Amino acid sequence: MSDRPSTPLLDTVHSPADLKRLSDSQLGQVAKELRSETISAVSETGGHLGAGLGVVELTVALHAVFDTPRDKLIWDVSHQCYPHKILTGRRDRIRTLRQKDGLSGFTKRSESPYDPFGAAHSSTSISAALGFAVARDLGGTCEAGLGDAIAVIGDGAMSAGMAFEAMNNAGHLGTRMIVILNDNEMSIAPPVGALSSYLSRIYAGEPFHDLKAVAKGAVSFLPPPFREGAKRAKEILKGMAMGGTLFEELGFSYIGPIDGHDLDQLLPMLRAVKAHATGPTLIHVLTKKGKGYAPAEEAHDGGHATAKFDVVTGKQKKAPSNAPAYTAVFAKGLIREAEEDSRICAVTAAMPGGTGLDKFGDRFPGRVFDVGIAEQHAVTFAAGLAAGGLKPFCALYSTFLQRGYDQVVHDVAIQRLPVRFAIDRAGLVGADGATHAGSFDTAFLANLPGMVVMAASDEAELTHMVATAAAHDEGPIAFRFPRGEGVGVEMPERGVPLVIGKGRMIREGARVALLNFGARLKEVQDACEALAPRGITPTIADARFAKPLDREMILRLAEEHEALITIEEGAVGGFGSHVAQLLSDEGVFDHGLKFRSMVLPDIFIDQASPADMYAVAGLNASDIETKVLEVLGVAKLGEKRA
Amino acid sequence: MSDRPSTPLLDTVHSPADLKRLSDSQLGQVAKELRSETISAVSETGGHLGAGLGVVELTVALHAVFDTPRDKLIWDVSHQCYPHKILTGRRDRIRTLRQKDGLSGFTKRSESPYDPFGAAHSSTSISAALGFAVARDLGGTCEAGLGDAIAVIGDGAMSAGMAFEAMNNAGHLGTRMIVILNDNEMSIAPPVGALSSYLSRIYAGEPFHDLKAVAKGAVSFLPPPFREGAKRAKEILKGMAMGGTLFEELGFSYIGPIDGHDLDQLLPMLRAVKAHATGPTLIHVLTKKGKGYAPAEEAHDGGHATAKFDVVTGKQKKAPSNAPAYTAVFAKGLIREAEEDSRICAVTAAMPGGTGLDKFGDRFPGRVFDVGIAEQHAVTFAAGLAAGGLKPFCALYSTFLQRGYDQVVHDVAIQRLPVRFAIDRAGLVGADGATHAGSFDTAFLANLPGMVVMAASDEAELTHMVATAAAHDEGPIAFRFPRGEGVGVEMPERGVPLVIGKGRMIREGARVALLNFGARLKEVQDACEALAPRGITPTIADARFAKPLDREMILRLAEEHEALITIEEGAVGGFGSHVAQLLSDEGVFDHGLKFRSMVLPDIFIDQASPADMYAVAGLNASDIETKVLEVLGVAKLGEKRA
Repeated sequence: MSDRPSTPLLDTVHSPADLKRLSDSQLGQVAKELRSETISAVSETGGHLGAGLGVVELTVALHAVFDTPRDKLIWDVSHQCYPHKILTGRRDRIRTLRQKDGLSGFTKRSESPYDPFGAAHSSTSISAALGFAVARDLGGTCEAGLGDAIAVIGDGAMSAGMAFEAMNNAGHLGTRMIVILNDNEMSIAPPVGALSSYLSRIYAGEPFHDLKAVAKGAVSFLPPPFREGAKRAKEILKGMAMGGTLFEELGFSYIGPIDGHDLDQLLPMLRAVKAHATGPTLIHVLTKKGKGYAPAEEAHDGGHATAKFDVVTGKQKKAPSNAPAYTAVFAKGLIREAEEDSRICAVTAAMPGGTGLDKFGDRFPGRVFDVGIAEQHAVTFAAGLAAGGLKPFCALYSTFLQRGYDQVVHDVAIQRLPVRFAIDRAGLVGADGATHAGSFDTAFLANLPGMVVMAASDEAELTHMVATAAAHDEGPIAFRFPRGEGVGVEMPERGVPLVIGKGRMIREGARVALLNFGARLKEVQDACEALAPRGITPTIADARFAKPLDREMILRLAEEHEALITIEEGAVGGFGSHVAQLLSDEGVFDHGLKFRSMVLPDIFIDQASPADMYAVAGLNASDIETKVLEVLGVAKLGEKRA
Repeated sequence: MSDRPSTPLLDTVHSPADLKRLSDSQLGQVAKELRSETISAVSETGGHLGAGLGVVELTVALHAVFDTPRDKLIWDVSHQCYPHKILTGRRDRIRTLRQKDGLSGFTKRSESPYDPFGAAHSSTSISAALGFAVARDLGGTCEAGLGDAIAVIGDGAMSAGMAFEAMNNAGHLGTRMIVILNDNEMSIAPPVGALSSYLSRIYAGEPFHDLKAVAKGAVSFLPPPFREGAKRAKEILKGMAMGGTLFEELGFSYIGPIDGHDLDQLLPMLRAVKAHATGPTLIHVLTKKGKGYAPAEEAHDGGHATAKFDVVTGKQKKAPSNAPAYTAVFAKGLIREAEEDSRICAVTAAMPGGTGLDKFGDRFPGRVFDVGIAEQHAVTFAAGLAAGGLKPFCALYSTFLQRGYDQVVHDVAIQRLPVRFAIDRAGLVGADGATHAGSFDTAFLANLPGMVVMAASDEAELTHMVATAAAHDEGPIAFRFPRGEGVGVEMPERGVPLVIGKGRMIREGARVALLNFGARLKEVQDACEALAPRGITPTIADARFAKPLDREMILRLAEEHEALITIEEGAVGGFGSHVAQLLSDEGVFDHGLKFRSMVLPDIFIDQASPADMYAVAGLNASDIETKVLEVLGVAKLGEKRA
């Protein structure tokens, strides 16, 4: 454990109400201590550091000025919520962040009334805040009351279509609500896109520590100190006139940019907005990701995510988890294929590091496209690339692919365009919890006509699946693989395309067939090892494909065994359901088959280690062992029989 | 059949190449004839009229100037594609539009090389065009070659987040591609949102027939006649300087607005762009939906969709299909509930008419929110409303709900917020074809923890489900219902909330249990009538809920019958799969059950009447009858046995 920092003033703050008793200069002291406490906590837990450090002053100012939790403060994505959690009664548990039974790494409604709307995916905050604002207008009620609605959203998140849709609607409705654009020129990776360049131009040439004034929209309700500085304000305003145009054209009053680390700017501005704003108001705040902690400030990603680290040196105690083995295997496999085929290119939605496409981009800079936080566009852009004769790999996390689902159906599947979906973070993911679990992709993809759906059971399989996808030009194809490290199998020099719709036998056994889809294969094998002393030797098969199914193999397994059990890291409706459909269509159940489908359970599972999460899910080796015994009627003592 | 119009010049145009031989004034004549031909064709087939009439001149100009199909012309949504189809070799089949085995009502890759990227859902065209442009830059190949990429997108479609994402990316990449903003101040309904107001301000006070000039961005490569008019251009430009700002800030050269019905503006401008454009270029074209046909121009929706009609009077030969019975029943039921509960409000994404919420809005104008073409925002906005203590009904077509899927998972289901999803157009929809089929919603919703999923088996059931949703405050709930008319059951004065997770027995029978989910119930009953003479009297149950399942009822049905057959209007992974999961979990298959799950087949089904589409799907009464006979081993002569 690190030495805890000295935080005498922060120690007196048990809830935002305590901030209201402090002077502005004391609030500055609280911010300093809050920064130290945040660094200290994350050094023990690991997690998202840079984003929180960037909003320390903003967090203090918002809670000091607004009346949370009656006023709804909604942190977009909420990577930046650790200081907020410390100020809102959760300091005593801040060192349990992202751990089993600990605080979530994100805001979460069930955790605190100060988290009125949880988040983890990007760009939802404005929609949610508008919902609260309209609910207030229509006489809605909720326990903490309904006052102002404030969305804090980064410039990266602002570039997503969803944020634009919400701004467009808010500007149209005209109700009072506040958007704080937290502009650090950084999402997870440095942001891309024209909006980002636009924002950069707004303050180009204006060192932001000099900015003490604000643009047009604010002048009318500026507090006295600002009115006196009106001359400077007007100078800025002149240069800024175009600045807020984009937002003003969308119906927002635009205020800014202001220095998000200067409470002397933040506090009066927020007070003025609170006192006088009538309609949708955007406050443009400039911050620095990782602010106040040199190792984070100096990192290329602003110290986005980190393992536990030494506070003094900033040295991480293990490698950050951003490039786990499966991801690296994917990237390596894709590079290998791309060396042989110039048509291969790749699309990522603001996750070059997380998906491994940064490596691909290093090798083939002209062939990778980071489209920003824009999964809808990513998928259809890839469809266009495919229609133009290229071989696009669209690399997304399972849970973010949900953002582009209609585009997968409408633009890719219906048109049978050969887009390759590399679906990372399939299954349960650990510390990021339920919002990042890749639970549904097999179900929502495998029933699309013409779609090929694969899952890698180990890292060598993943390499073959990359090769399979590269070779498959007849239509769309997807392959899913988990977060984390592979199982250590021998790796091929290069992948060999698999036969579409053919599984592989792992071992022939008797009585029970275990039909695996995905990365639980090791657990299946471990279960069989545990069963061996009892003389139970299940057959093991790896389906490889949820679609098309290996009908021949599956029907043979059903015929030759008294029981058939499918195992997958996905919710009902996916692989096991497709197998059940095949078996019922073929009349296999007519005369009896002990069929079981082991899937993710019908709950959202909170963060923990992946192994702990799979224990909750009942998909570890011991669970598979139990299921086999149960099906064979060899129940362990004290175990429930079906 | 209407009298065909005289179209002597159009008769000589068999492909766009023929346009290139014509003078500009002859092109004007072609446009006139093309308009008449379009009106004449749609008067015979019904379909989307107003959008096509609005782009007649634009269609002629684009094909005359650009080198289609080498240049990729992508019509957004493609309601407006009928004139395009007439000019691109499909005139001989234009009177088969939207009919079985006829031309699709949308662009479709499989139909013509002139349709490089099909569409039917909104706002995909810029992404696709950018894909083609980048593929061209990277040396991609396709049969017709790769030249310019041109997206034609309406102002309504431009307001969707996806379009913004694509603009943002295109502006960043900087490659040559062309977006034509077809601004008619109209999507299907008049568009809403701040962007729409913004566009209106651009040309406020400038009657567009006077606009002969263009704004800043274009001046540098204007053709001579425009340069000579530079003084006027500069005047306009002055007023327009702010006009294109939003697009210019996103990295586009902005040109316009120009009169989209004036070939003397369109042709030189398109030629100039073709000759000189280097990067992303937006041409802002003003058109009138329904242009040139008074009954359409005068309609509130610009003659969006129509049944067959009399060309002279404009009188439709049957009511337009925009307010079918189920939709009306939903609207009526919702109004009834809202009269009793002021917390009920409603959200639509640019479909107030199609979802029946226009009626709700007439009654409760302050309680309905049309957020524009913005399903992502619609869902999360509804989640915010629910978090603020209201009871939002989010009314979307099944296929458009796909656009908000991640928001359903991340913002609604994980937070257990009581958003009510009214899912219209569930199942096969007829003339709109595969892109509008509501095939996947049961599968992609029913595996979300905490979600309640219902399907109405008739219009009275729908009324009860509206009441059930209104009463259900514990978490999210969805109910699906089909396009078209109900079956004529007696209607309750007001809906009565159903018990969550309880089905209903329709009749007790023997040997076979037919377990229905959704609006195939009538077909199930008809099948049983046909079976009666053979002495086969299946039990019929209506599940009502795919989630939670009525475990007790289903297990009893399984126990008491030798066969259990599920029937639903959805793809595999939905209701039948959840039943199979229950049955296998409970060991019901262990000793034999003739279980079958009748689902939509694994193909995208082309447009036809719903009955014809269900025949293809194998879900009509005769198919159910056949399935029962097959399962009981009483095969009809000549029929295949499983």
